[in-house]
Amino acid sequence: VARWWGAACGAVAELWAFARADPRKPVFAGKVALALALISLLVFIREPRDIVSHSIWAILTVVVVFEFSIGATLSKGFNRGLGTLTAGAFALAVAELSKHLGKLEEVILITSILIVAFVTTLTKLHPKMKPYEYGFRVFLLTFCYVMVYGYNSGKFTDTATSRFILIAIGAAVSLGINIGIYPIWAGEDLHNLIAKNFTGVAKSLEGCVDGYLRCMEYERIPSKILVYQASDDPLYSGYRAAVEASAQEETLLGFAIWEPPHGPYKTMNYPWRSFTKVSGALRHCSFAVMALHGCILSEIQAPPESRRVFAAEIQRVGQEGAKVLRELGSRVKTMTKLSSSGILFEVHMAAEVLQKKIDEKSYLLVNTERWDASKQAQGIKEVLNGTRAVEKENKNKENKNDGTSAVEKENKAKENNNGGVEPTMVDQTLVHQSKSFLGNSFLSRFDSASTIDGFKPLLSWPARRSFHPNIPLEDEDSQTYESASALSLATFASLLIEFVARLQNVVNAFEELSEKANFKDPVEEPTAV
Amino acid sequence: VARWWGAACGAVAELWAFARADPRKPVFAGKVALALALISLLVFIREPRDIVSHSIWAILTVVVVFEFSIGATLSKGFNRGLGTLTAGAFALAVAELSKHLGKLEEVILITSILIVAFVTTLTKLHPKMKPYEYGFRVFLLTFCYVMVYGYNSGKFTDTATSRFILIAIGAAVSLGINIGIYPIWAGEDLHNLIAKNFTGVAKSLEGCVDGYLRCMEYERIPSKILVYQASDDPLYSGYRAAVEASAQEETLLGFAIWEPPHGPYKTMNYPWRSFTKVSGALRHCSFAVMALHGCILSEIQAPPESRRVFAAEIQRVGQEGAKVLRELGSRVKTMTKLSSSGILFEVHMAAEVLQKKIDEKSYLLVNTERWDASKQAQGIKEVLNGTRAVEKENKNKENKNDGTSAVEKENKAKENNNGGVEPTMVDQTLVHQSKSFLGNSFLSRFDSASTIDGFKPLLSWPARRSFHPNIPLEDEDSQTYESASALSLATFASLLIEFVARLQNVVNAFEELSEKANFKDPVEEPTAV
Repeated sequence: VARWWGAACGAVAELWAFARADPRKPVFAGKVALALALISLLVFIREPRDIVSHSIWAILTVVVVFEFSIGATLSKGFNRGLGTLTAGAFALAVAELSKHLGKLEEVILITSILIVAFVTTLTKLHPKMKPYEYGFRVFLLTFCYVMVYGYNSGKFTDTATSRFILIAIGAAVSLGINIGIYPIWAGEDLHNLIAKNFTGVAKSLEGCVDGYLRCMEYERIPSKILVYQASDDPLYSGYRAAVEASAQEETLLGFAIWEPPHGPYKTMNYPWRSFTKVSGALRHCSFAVMALHGCILSEIQAPPESRRVFAAEIQRVGQEGAKVLRELGSRVKTMTKLSSSGILFEVHMAAEVLQKKIDEKSYLLVNTERWDASKQAQGIKEVLNGTRAVEKENKNKENKNDGTSAVEKENKAKENNNGGVEPTMVDQTLVHQSKSFLGNSFLSRFDSASTIDGFKPLLSWPARRSFHPNIPLEDEDSQTYESASALSLATFASLLIEFVARLQNVVNAFEELSEKANFKDPVEEPTAV
Repeated sequence: VARWWGAACGAVAELWAFARADPRKPVFAGKVALALALISLLVFIREPRDIVSHSIWAILTVVVVFEFSIGATLSKGFNRGLGTLTAGAFALAVAELSKHLGKLEEVILITSILIVAFVTTLTKLHPKMKPYEYGFRVFLLTFCYVMVYGYNSGKFTDTATSRFILIAIGAAVSLGINIGIYPIWAGEDLHNLIAKNFTGVAKSLEGCVDGYLRCMEYERIPSKILVYQASDDPLYSGYRAAVEASAQEETLLGFAIWEPPHGPYKTMNYPWRSFTKVSGALRHCSFAVMALHGCILSEIQAPPESRRVFAAEIQRVGQEGAKVLRELGSRVKTMTKLSSSGILFEVHMAAEVLQKKIDEKSYLLVNTERWDASKQAQGIKEVLNGTRAVEKENKNKENKNDGTSAVEKENKAKENNNGGVEPTMVDQTLVHQSKSFLGNSFLSRFDSASTIDGFKPLLSWPARRSFHPNIPLEDEDSQTYESASALSLATFASLLIEFVARLQNVVNAFEELSEKANFKDPVEEPTAV
């Protein structure tokens, strides 16, 4: 008993917290309760037997039509009204026809129900009819009801009429209370959702850039990310919300277009569709952020030292990008046009600086060790191999892929100290490499219960045999890892620049929206003068 | 009139085509029609007035509960049954209580409706209660109905009982017909959907790789892709379907868990959730494919000549990757375990070969022109500048970012012919660059009506002043473009390798599924011997 009591208390506490978190929800529940009480009161007061026996329709209408947002209520009410009216009219026509046929009446009734049910259900399943699904359901229900009930009582017209009056009463009470008292608009929800997603993506972007520069690594990647389920990883949840919002936006859009002009959305035919376009463009951006996050999740990681070289530039692009997103988000929120000065100016500058830096330092992004064994390429190797004390182990692997590598290794054996090009960089890179080789095997961080040991060896890069940081890795695989690791930084940077390019697209969508929706002109800030 | 007639004919033709495309849909419509006719027949035959006046409940139940899949029908039926039973019991208890209070009866009734409606609606809105939303609705409806109707007729118990009997009849007919005749299972749908998505992603992957190697470029990027709407671009639709399927899978999963063991899904508590996990892992992969597609969509494109250098390796990784996806898809479809030999062996080999090739040829991926002006770096430049006839224009840009560049340019002027390292490659690269500069400005392909001319110039890379392919670009911006363009190939390759890494994850999820769901062992093919 005590456990039940505890569970009940827990449920009440949770419900209470839930109600406190969004006051619109208890308000809505209160409105529903009020509408139902009102309808019951009407039934209690009015005495005519005829109305009372049909009172169920008014109650049913309230329970079914009273939806959270005004748009949903209007849409359902319209569907219900139209379905009832057409079905009633149609049923009366069929009934009238069947009356004249005498004996065949019952056959006609059953046949008509069969045919109408078949056609209605089939049409309802068509994708184009999705928004009117409820209308078809009501149509079918009303048609059958009028047929069956009218046949039994012989009062086809009365049945249809009283039913319609009660539905009208129910709908009127629902609409009156729902719109009259603290209306909850789907359009507003849509607006806020989109503005919120901007902030979420901006946060994710900053988090990814910071995390990348801090050389954040996941000990174990939450398996939820790998199977794309909701997770409370802060980097992940921001862009995931933006990506996942598409279904919700679609629903809200379907309701918002039903809503009359209200509050700040003053024009008829408010361009809600442009709002979802902005959100779609943002989603396209957030896929780029997702790819950035992929670089952090990836097993192959760039050495921290080379990240540090580009840190300032990458950081700046990330910050400027997040700033643009936040700015756009707040413009969407406050419905203000962009001021004439280019919002993308700073972030484009930052991207260009980053690109130039990559350009200048691109030798940090590739592994020059294994460039083609032609004599000219040797020069490059000599330059970069610098101070490395190279110890060779000419252990030939079975699965050798190219015949040149043996030659290469001999060539490499000859190269030694040639005066240091940023020797510390190379050395430190090696230190990091060896460290990461110790703990990690390729893909080992993928979090899964069942790994097939059969081909694990294929996946793992060979473990280091020595802890000494100055002994370079001469296994082919290790070298491959090293080069992949260096390129990973290039990938991160390219993706970041791609993200910046996609921002243009968001700005364009926003411009279109701000024109169509007549956003207010920005107030020129006095500081700008 | 003729136009109306034409429209009607068109609608019928479309409906006919729709019904032909998926025969399950007309079958379902037929089942609904049959169930409704049967219920009507029951009403026609039975005479007791009591039943007939409540017949609406049986019809309502059929219309509302009869859903496309068995799982949905069972889930709704359960909700409806539970809602009706508890509401009926609760309403009777309240009614019994209020009877003893005499005068206060009406107040009690209205108050109880208020309280019950409020609590029910609030609980219904809680996210955890989403699957039971319909049950709460039915609870509220039944409670109000029993209260109001019972008060008017004074027959609380009768109302609740007859209502429940009729609902039970309606539900029995629905379930009997829906399960008995050509059942449509949500689990089967889920299974097929997931298997289909594997093929879709595989097609997208192949398309992206082929397109990239064919140097496919979008004249204008369909704006639908940029705002993430459905589009019939073949590369796009494949992975988009896999990404978008998450909502549909969630719904089908919610229904599938209601379904009893059937057909090939023989165990109780069939692990449907593991199916969606496989699909989630596939989704994680398809985000990598999406990023690959992003490389094709991107404004910055690698020169075709360097792509050709890696073509064979990239192609192989793409083909092997697609083969793995297709193989997994067909294993999911046929519910067969993986054979012991590693399915990922080939694709990992291919990825390693690609990685090594990148390693060896990584000088093609970076622009060595602008490496740091230290003396050692000069050596590298000399190697690579090779046969290029370098014509210098020492035009200094205003927005110079680093002081060293003037020195650099002078240095470069000194370097000349040093014996050719793949000179054609470098030359051809330049030809391509100059071509692409003519037509494209940065981001110009973004398809949008409203571009702000105010900062277009900032976005555009400067147009070429000369058509001659052998005159290199000496503008800083052009060089930056060139280097970005070269890195783009590195990005594509890294993303491809990342895709391969993510395949492991899909295989793990599949292994888990095949264990839990007891997939059959693979038939050893005779060719393997």
